[in-house]
Formats: sequence, structure tokens, C-alpha cells
Amino acid sequence: MMYAHWKNGTHERKVVFDVYIRKLPFDNGYAVFAGLARVVNYLQQLSFTEEDIAFLADEEEHYEPEFLEYLRGLRFTGNLWSVREGEVVFAGEPWMRIEAPAGEAHLIETALLNFINYQTLVATKASRIRNVAEEDTLLEFGSRRAQEADAAIWGTRAAYLAGFHATSNVRAAMMFGIPAVGTHAHAWVQMHDSELESFEKFTEALPEQSTLLVDTYDTLRSGVPNAIKAAKRMAERGKRLKAIRLDSGDLAYLSKKARAMLDEAGLHDVKISASSDLDEFTIMHLKTQGARIDQWGVGTKLITCEGQPSLGGVYKLAARTLADGTLVPTIKISANPAKITTPGVKDVYRIMSNETGKAIADYVCLSEETDVREGKPLKLFNPEHPYMSTIIEHYTAVPLLQLVLEAGRLTGPLPALDEARRYHLHQKQLFWPEYLRTLNPELHHVHISERLWTLKRDMIEKMKNSRVHPPRP
Amino acid sequence: MMYAHWKNGTHERKVVFDVYIRKLPFDNGYAVFAGLARVVNYLQQLSFTEEDIAFLADEEEHYEPEFLEYLRGLRFTGNLWSVREGEVVFAGEPWMRIEAPAGEAHLIETALLNFINYQTLVATKASRIRNVAEEDTLLEFGSRRAQEADAAIWGTRAAYLAGFHATSNVRAAMMFGIPAVGTHAHAWVQMHDSELESFEKFTEALPEQSTLLVDTYDTLRSGVPNAIKAAKRMAERGKRLKAIRLDSGDLAYLSKKARAMLDEAGLHDVKISASSDLDEFTIMHLKTQGARIDQWGVGTKLITCEGQPSLGGVYKLAARTLADGTLVPTIKISANPAKITTPGVKDVYRIMSNETGKAIADYVCLSEETDVREGKPLKLFNPEHPYMSTIIEHYTAVPLLQLVLEAGRLTGPLPALDEARRYHLHQKQLFWPEYLRTLNPELHHVHISERLWTLKRDMIEKMKNSRVHPPRP
Repeated sequence: MMYAHWKNGTHERKVVFDVYIRKLPFDNGYAVFAGLARVVNYLQQLSFTEEDIAFLADEEEHYEPEFLEYLRGLRFTGNLWSVREGEVVFAGEPWMRIEAPAGEAHLIETALLNFINYQTLVATKASRIRNVAEEDTLLEFGSRRAQEADAAIWGTRAAYLAGFHATSNVRAAMMFGIPAVGTHAHAWVQMHDSELESFEKFTEALPEQSTLLVDTYDTLRSGVPNAIKAAKRMAERGKRLKAIRLDSGDLAYLSKKARAMLDEAGLHDVKISASSDLDEFTIMHLKTQGARIDQWGVGTKLITCEGQPSLGGVYKLAARTLADGTLVPTIKISANPAKITTPGVKDVYRIMSNETGKAIADYVCLSEETDVREGKPLKLFNPEHPYMSTIIEHYTAVPLLQLVLEAGRLTGPLPALDEARRYHLHQKQLFWPEYLRTLNPELHHVHISERLWTLKRDMIEKMKNSRVHPPRP
Repeated sequence: MMYAHWKNGTHERKVVFDVYIRKLPFDNGYAVFAGLARVVNYLQQLSFTEEDIAFLADEEEHYEPEFLEYLRGLRFTGNLWSVREGEVVFAGEPWMRIEAPAGEAHLIETALLNFINYQTLVATKASRIRNVAEEDTLLEFGSRRAQEADAAIWGTRAAYLAGFHATSNVRAAMMFGIPAVGTHAHAWVQMHDSELESFEKFTEALPEQSTLLVDTYDTLRSGVPNAIKAAKRMAERGKRLKAIRLDSGDLAYLSKKARAMLDEAGLHDVKISASSDLDEFTIMHLKTQGARIDQWGVGTKLITCEGQPSLGGVYKLAARTLADGTLVPTIKISANPAKITTPGVKDVYRIMSNETGKAIADYVCLSEETDVREGKPLKLFNPEHPYMSTIIEHYTAVPLLQLVLEAGRLTGPLPALDEARRYHLHQKQLFWPEYLRTLNPELHHVHISERLWTLKRDMIEKMKNSRVHPPRP
């Protein structure tokens, strides 16, 4: 496409793309936006190496040398508008708006969606788990099952952003300043003549990271009694066993028995950590059963987003520049109404109730519209059922899209990861709990302005070929 | 664990680990081993940078400086035995055997499992899709939905290894020599005043890569007729339209109508390409309905392995060295019999019938056992039902594990990707079709030798705490 633009002389024409989803993942009531830091880094580094150019020169398209020269000098020079990392976001509203020359805007689509889709998916899953685990400690343990190395690294960052506390991935800990935690493997126990010996050697070497895995042979008859012995010897040296870890079996039963055994030995402050294909469902069930688990090691099902391993984020053209320089809205029609795009350069606002301080709705309108910014009465109506509407007043409209890159340059430093994490946890408090629950949440609506709705409807009408049912023979 | 070993002075003791799975993915009858090239590259590059050392020096464990010195000089010096990439493999047999100093062997576990788990999962899914698509062209289209960048790259390689033909990921094409293909996006059409103009501009610029996406406005009333017009103008210039692409709607119906329209226009050689959440199930259904689709663009569901986004590959200690230098087998007990490990240094053979040339079973035995190599009569029995057994003769035993790294060095060049791809397609022919079908396949059994079974049973017996049911109150 870049080459076709270049051949047509349209590669420098400004276009506007939106990034959004059509449906929330996991039947959740919201998503947690993540991936912005990665996108910004990608856009700022974007360039073709000599090796890239040489490869393209050999391709069967026989690109003209002047095109390769254009690629050689190419950098991202556009504007990037984005919601903040950790923002609570919804389907059908732009999370990012890209304003850039057509050649650049087409090039970045795949990488940008790849980063946003995965990191947002993990952050959303992690946020669900945090809602269920409440104030318990959440440990990210998924690296060995992640879909390749980048997923282990960036998935860990997304999990921490959405409220996890630590990770076993030391590389991610180093890159992002996330606390690193870990325990030993079964192999450590097997390496020794006895389980007790292995526990003593481990706690002698690592008194500050002492979590003992107790299920190598038999949790209650061997693992926990040996851990208690090791803890007592640590106490003699003035040290404290931090935790034991259960990694198999009936976690509800075993944790209650282990807690009783630890308490009976006076080890009230030794925590119980659990891992074994955990997710928001198993954690909720275990808590309902009164499991005595303080720390949840969540691996496979978080890092691979089991249940829905992909987010359907799309990158759609909203406006283009004509030869005379006019910016005009564009639309894509589909037999499926959900796949029809919303045209024009748009902004999105969170409408907050002045009375309760809670979010009422999100509101998408053309950037040139000013009513919402001025706090004027707003007509909110459901774009799927436009005959249903309500007027609201006494609200505060918070603009969600911020200008992050202007002509390819950062407008200011991005928030540190810990700041983004606090931001997410705070944003959740701006919603009533009913909107955050993991099953059958209340739906927070995304409304579009009347002007935007009229524009969309008129453009659909104008399309000669906008029949929504395919013809049959 | 490395630090605990170092403190104990056991970090240089040789250990043996196996990599295997307990259960095949997707209810398939086999898996396709992939990830070896990535693992070898990782092991050969393995080292700690000064930045890594500085980070570890700051951690709360207060590692001794001599330990950090050990890390500074650390390289992988072990042996790696592995089945070949593209090998047809099964649950319960070692795919890799690592013989290395304990410190190194523990360090590599997570990365090694991460690579093997994901790439094997994608290769297995891709092989299933190839079984259904038969000789149709298969295009990998998943980058925007892959779980981060590495998954897009290495997932593409795994898909090609297992029989895909090309990819839309130009980076993967460049790295691995995979054919690159692509079409334009809806945005290309939206960028122009009319669909026909957009098709003409595209085919003028890229006559060799001319696949036209025909569903931006209305597939049959606008897209296909405009593609036919563009194809006829190409013909006037001595060029040929390669294909049209359907990306939404009823692919069975649309492809048949589009085929008829193309044929009526004399464009018999213009192919029809389809994409839209495809996988082995949708492809099989579409073929059953007589869909006229020549090329399948498979994206999201392949690259994220929807249905089962993780493979449960594990890395388990099979033998360890005592202080006196003796290598002894180790075992891990579990209340779940499937989770009990198989002890000892083992090899795996594929038992081929001399009569039919087809695979009969796989056979795992201790490396020191020679009967199988000498073609002696073998007692095959199911380790889950050891009272069921059969004696086989007149077989050829093909050893599956090959020595890839010896003392950290490559024993020879790894096969090129195209060679591994041919190897996989050939290996599948060594199985009866009933073992390769996507639903309810016949099960190819993995047997263990009688000596290995006896060793395992004796070690379980010897374990004082080997009760398989947890005690109840």
C-alpha cells in the first residue's frame, strides 16, 4: 500500500485513523488500556535499516529506487492522540487517533494493533483478577507458558499496570522496576537426599526470598512438616520463613490444613502462597470455600488470556485529505452493522456526575463540537436504538484522548509505570461496583453526538451500494 | 535456585532434565515439535551483561560478589539432545534432554519452555489446518492479533514449518526466507473517490502482487464487478489480476457467486482468497459446502491458538549426580499419577513396521538399554494399564533424540527451515491417515521399556510418602 501511494503521489496526504474495539473481552464490563509506552517507543524508533532496504529491493515488485530512497529517510512524523495507560475504556470509542501522512499511517497499523491488542487484553484480565482477589497479593507466574518472549515481558508489565504486585520474571522486573519474587522448583527438592535437607539449604542461602514449595512428595505428611522444621531452624538464626507454596491438589483443603499446622507451630506470620492454573474464577471459588491463601501465583491463564486469547482491536480510516487539501470524513460499509465505521475526526469524553462523582457514560463527538466542553445540556442516545434518548445536565466532561506525539515528538514524559498503575486503581473507583463485577456487569454506555450520528447516517444513505443484505439468487 | 546451588557448591554438578508434555493439544492425535532453532540460538548467546549483573547486585538477596563473578563468566556448557524441528511427537516422551551443570540447567528452564511451548502449539494447529486444506494455499495473516511481536514472528515460522505457504509478515519473511504475500486494506479503498479508482491505482502500482479486497462497500454489486473491470484493464496492459479477497459475509455463498462472475468474464485464472476468523473447523465446513476458495488467509485463531492458547510443556529432573560423582535417577511424586515423572536418562525410538513402512508406536527406554537398537523382540505395554502387553518383531527403531549441542557447541548445522518443513510433511506420511484426522484420531501409543517401568515402580514404592490420596480429617 505504501508503494501504491508513493506511485500515486498520495503518500504525504494526511489521513486520520482510529483505534478501537467493537466488543469487550471476557464479557467484562470494561477494558484496561495498555501498550502505549510500547507504541510510543516503536514510533520513535521507526526507520528502515540498510538490511531492510536490501531485502525489499530484491522483492518481486521491483520497487523503484526512488521509493526505497523515500523509505530510507522515513520517520514517524504524525500526531498520536491516546487515552492514558491504565484508563478504563469501552467498546465503540476511539482509544487512539493517528493523524499522519498516508504512507506512515499505513505502515504502523500492524505493530500498533499487535501491541495494544495483547497488552490491553492482559491488563483487562489482570484487573478482573484483582477485583476478585481484593487486597490479597497477586504474583505473575506465567513466563514459561506465554506466547513467546515478548508476551512474557510485556504481559507482565500489563498485569502489574492493572494491579498485580510482583512477578517471577526477572527480566521484566529489571526493565520496568516491578518487584521480583520467586520460589524454587520441584527439581530443587529432587536434587537433595531429603526434602528437609533441600529446605534447609534453600533457606540458608536465601533467607530473604524464602518461600518453600511443599508438594514435591506429599504436601501434608512431608512438605508442610518439613517446612515447619526449616522455619524453626531459621528462627534460631533470627530469620523468618516467608511463605510456603502449594502447587497442586485441592488448594482449599490443603491451605486450611496447612494454615492450621503452621498456626499450631506458632508460625502465624508464615504466608501461604498458591499456584496451579489459577484465574479469576478459581480464585473466587477458593475464597468462597474459605481457602487460607494469602498470595496467588497466577500464570498460564492470565498471560495467554485463556478463554479469549485475542482482542479484536481495529485501525480504521476516519478521514482523508483530498487533492485540494480538504479533510473529509470516510466510512466503511458492511453487511454487519457493527462493522460500519464511524466517520470523521472525533474526540471522546467521560461524562462524570457532579452529584456523585461517578461516571455516567462516555460521549464521542466530532472534535469541532464544543457543547460538551462547555457543559451544555447533552442529548445522550443509544446509537443502536437512536429513538431512546435522555438529556443530561450538571456533569463534568473529562477528555480522554491526549496528544502524546506531535509531529512525531513526545509532548511530555509518559507517566512512570507505578503512576499508571495508581491511575488505573483510582479510575476504577469512579465507577459503581456493579460495573466492575466479573459476571453480568452493568453496561457503561458509549454515546455518540447527534451531529456525529447524523453524519454517519447521511454517509450510509449516500453510499449507492449500502444494502445490508447480500442478494440471493 | 542458582544462588542456593552456588552457596552449597553444587552448581557444577551434572543434572539431566527432560522436556515433554502430558497431554496433546486440541485433542489432536499428535504434536509438531518446533522451537529448536530459537532454543539453540538462546543457549549459544546465553550470558549476563554488566547491566544484568548490576541489577542483581542491587536485589535484596545481597548476593556475594563471587556469585556475581560466576554469573559474569557463565555460558551454556551442557549437552542438548532434541528431536528434529517438524518431528511428529506425542505426550509422555522426551522431546529434549538437557545434560548440564545444575546452575545452567536451572537457569534455562523458563526460556526453553517458553519457546518450545508456543512454537510447538502453533505448528500443531497449523498442521491440523494443512490436513483439512489439503493442497490449497495457506497464508499466515495473524500479526495484528498475535500476543506481542515475538509471537507474530516465531508463530509465522512455526506455521510455515508445518505446511503453510506464505505470510503477510514481511519481517518474518525477511528473517526466515518465507514467501511474503499481502493485499490492501479497506482503508486503501476508502482513500479514493471510488472503489474502481482504488483498484486501478493499486493494480497499476503492483501488478505482481495484485490481490483486490472486494468487500469494502458491497461484495457482489460493487467489489467483484469493479475487480473484473480492473482485471480487464490489466489484461490490456499484458498483466494479470492474481486474486480477489473476501474478508466478511457468507464466504460459501459469496465465493460461489464471485467464481461464477469471474468465470463469466473469462477470468478463470483469477484466484479467490478468503479470510475472516478462519481455522480448521471453518475451512472444513466451507469446503464441505462447496466454497470456491483457493487461498485461505488464516490469522487470529492460528497465531493465538484459540481453543487452547497454551501448551503444558514441562522441564523435569530425571537424574542427578551425587557428591561421589554417581549419576542417579530422580522422581517427583504426585497425588495425580499423570504428574509422576519417569526417572533416569532416557532415549526415545519410533518403532516402524518393516512390512508397511508405517509407525507402530513410540518406545521410551533407559539410554543404556540395547535391545531396541539391536532389533530384538520388544514387549510393548501400556504404562497406564501394564497388564496389557504385546510382543513385536520385524521392526525398525528410529532414534528420535539427536545430539544438537555437545559441551555447548553445535554438533553440525541445523536444517534450513525449508528442509524442516519438507521433513514434517514427509513424517506425516509415515502415519496412517486415521492418526492424523482432526476429530477423534486413533491414538499412537508411547510405551516404556519393562526395565524403565520397573525402575519407576520401585522408586515410587521406596518413597516413604508416596500415598496417592491426600489424608482427610
